[in-house]
Amino acid sequence: MKRNPVIAVVGATGLVGNELLVCLEESDIEFDDLKLFASENSEGEIYSFRDTEYKIETLDQNSFDGVNLALFAVKADLAKKYAPLAIQTGTLVIDSSSAFGLQDDVPLVVPELNFSAVKQVHKIISSPAPSTVQLIPILSAIHRVAGLKRVVVSTYEAVSGAGKAALDELWSQTLAIFNQREIVSEAFQHQIAFNCIPQIDVMRSDGYTKEEFRIVAETRKILGLSGLSMTATAVRVPVLHSHGASVNIELEKELLPDQCVALLQKVSGLEVFPDTLDYPMPLGAANTDDIHVGRIRRDSSLAYGLDMWIVADNVRKGTALNLIGISKKIIETFGE
Amino acid sequence: MKRNPVIAVVGATGLVGNELLVCLEESDIEFDDLKLFASENSEGEIYSFRDTEYKIETLDQNSFDGVNLALFAVKADLAKKYAPLAIQTGTLVIDSSSAFGLQDDVPLVVPELNFSAVKQVHKIISSPAPSTVQLIPILSAIHRVAGLKRVVVSTYEAVSGAGKAALDELWSQTLAIFNQREIVSEAFQHQIAFNCIPQIDVMRSDGYTKEEFRIVAETRKILGLSGLSMTATAVRVPVLHSHGASVNIELEKELLPDQCVALLQKVSGLEVFPDTLDYPMPLGAANTDDIHVGRIRRDSSLAYGLDMWIVADNVRKGTALNLIGISKKIIETFGE
Repeated sequence: MKRNPVIAVVGATGLVGNELLVCLEESDIEFDDLKLFASENSEGEIYSFRDTEYKIETLDQNSFDGVNLALFAVKADLAKKYAPLAIQTGTLVIDSSSAFGLQDDVPLVVPELNFSAVKQVHKIISSPAPSTVQLIPILSAIHRVAGLKRVVVSTYEAVSGAGKAALDELWSQTLAIFNQREIVSEAFQHQIAFNCIPQIDVMRSDGYTKEEFRIVAETRKILGLSGLSMTATAVRVPVLHSHGASVNIELEKELLPDQCVALLQKVSGLEVFPDTLDYPMPLGAANTDDIHVGRIRRDSSLAYGLDMWIVADNVRKGTALNLIGISKKIIETFGE
Repeated sequence: MKRNPVIAVVGATGLVGNELLVCLEESDIEFDDLKLFASENSEGEIYSFRDTEYKIETLDQNSFDGVNLALFAVKADLAKKYAPLAIQTGTLVIDSSSAFGLQDDVPLVVPELNFSAVKQVHKIISSPAPSTVQLIPILSAIHRVAGLKRVVVSTYEAVSGAGKAALDELWSQTLAIFNQREIVSEAFQHQIAFNCIPQIDVMRSDGYTKEEFRIVAETRKILGLSGLSMTATAVRVPVLHSHGASVNIELEKELLPDQCVALLQKVSGLEVFPDTLDYPMPLGAANTDDIHVGRIRRDSSLAYGLDMWIVADNVRKGTALNLIGISKKIIETFGE
């Protein structure tokens, strides 16, 4: 890897791709060249970045020639299609989709936590689901001092998790309701305006959705706790930005709410709300770099248990900053 | 109690009061007279009911004279103020607020389940929180066959649970966002449009909200399981009607999802969604009489456990129909 690599962003005009470019521009990552790939709809558009103009291109067989690092901000099916093309030319792929993260030979990384999983031999590095990203630093810190026995998560996921068309759909459906026009649902299976949809991603044969399965499997993999007892219910709510999660944690030993607050206040990247009347909300977390955690209280139904409420901007913190963080560490560690 | 009692509705012009009148009109309850009480704002308004016109009155010292049954659809503070007035004149009070339900001498009733708790000596009967009402028939049926060991609930509560002003506030805030006008929050502590607020009712010193405490305490009382291990997190979501709940249940013995579906299909008042790709949603449950339950799946983090998703119209099913159901049974049982 070059110290000033050639970087490609695949899916540059989507919600995540756009935020990736914002976070890349804010970072101190230097690059030799930047290549922006998107679908034909955006071909030829100009993106201005650090006083240089870059043209949006479509992907073809030779797109990754000379690219050192490709940040993938597309859905799993497109990632599966194009990542092999990148690998062929020796490009390192950092993927934000669910395509590769649970493969044994692919490190699944939250950079503050387990970057050590990345070795020079790896060709693909995966970034977890945003709902996983916002759990990891908290569960990891708690596990170290009190031992995780079981975790029950219910998510309140923003529509931005389903991309720009989904964001537009919540707006347009809401407007259609006010104007008494027909409701059109294309990005979601059902109307999302003023509704909750308890299905994110496809339904599995065991009754869990792929999103629910992913949150549990990714948490186990990143924490290195393959036997962790954990279950999740993932629900889409009519919120634009930031995923919420109601998290119930059974512990191996006592960790009082005050002790938990003090513990989490020492973890970088967290904003802890110790006052019960002040708490995280999607609106407050949107466009911030921290994971917001509050409503930390003793769960009296357990010998040792805690309830809490965790919120983070799924596109910025949950995805873009995670990919940029991985990129930075890769350049620092393997750059020459 | 007379077979054709004189019935009063206290808070007749609110969301719950209005739905109470709709449900009363749909029921086969006969009454000698109907008295409708509300605040001064509505005084003198006319409500047309079964071809008779009733005038909205304000409450005073003598309002309950001759009233046999008073249905209270006001907040706890007003219920505490006016219920004693009703009791003084021998009026039986059925209250929908949180004012009395956890008192030892007040039966807390879901009529299909524990009407037997009501004795002729009782002066106040309480209806549980809508979030409790929608759990009870399901938890009760499951407990009978497999034993409840522990229950973890996360709610997704509609704004209608906070009354008409709250419903208006979600509309007006949403419109204000579209029109780029100032957001005004009065019914809620924070903006609810495109947001989630993890506080319903006041915050307690133990870190739980009163709503969360109420759901747990009411469930224990109605099921007669004072030691039931249970915890709840209650969150307001920008939905107009119907509360959702993600419910995780630890069982004493095996109950497979298919067995649970079959069990619940035999419980009256439930609409069970056995197909994983078809599931309850707030929009679908709104203005229906049933509790909708789906996404029933095995929680593999437990020896014996289930996850499920439960939705019901909080105003209609969770409150009004519950009060009307209690009223009906009282007239049937004690009417003479």
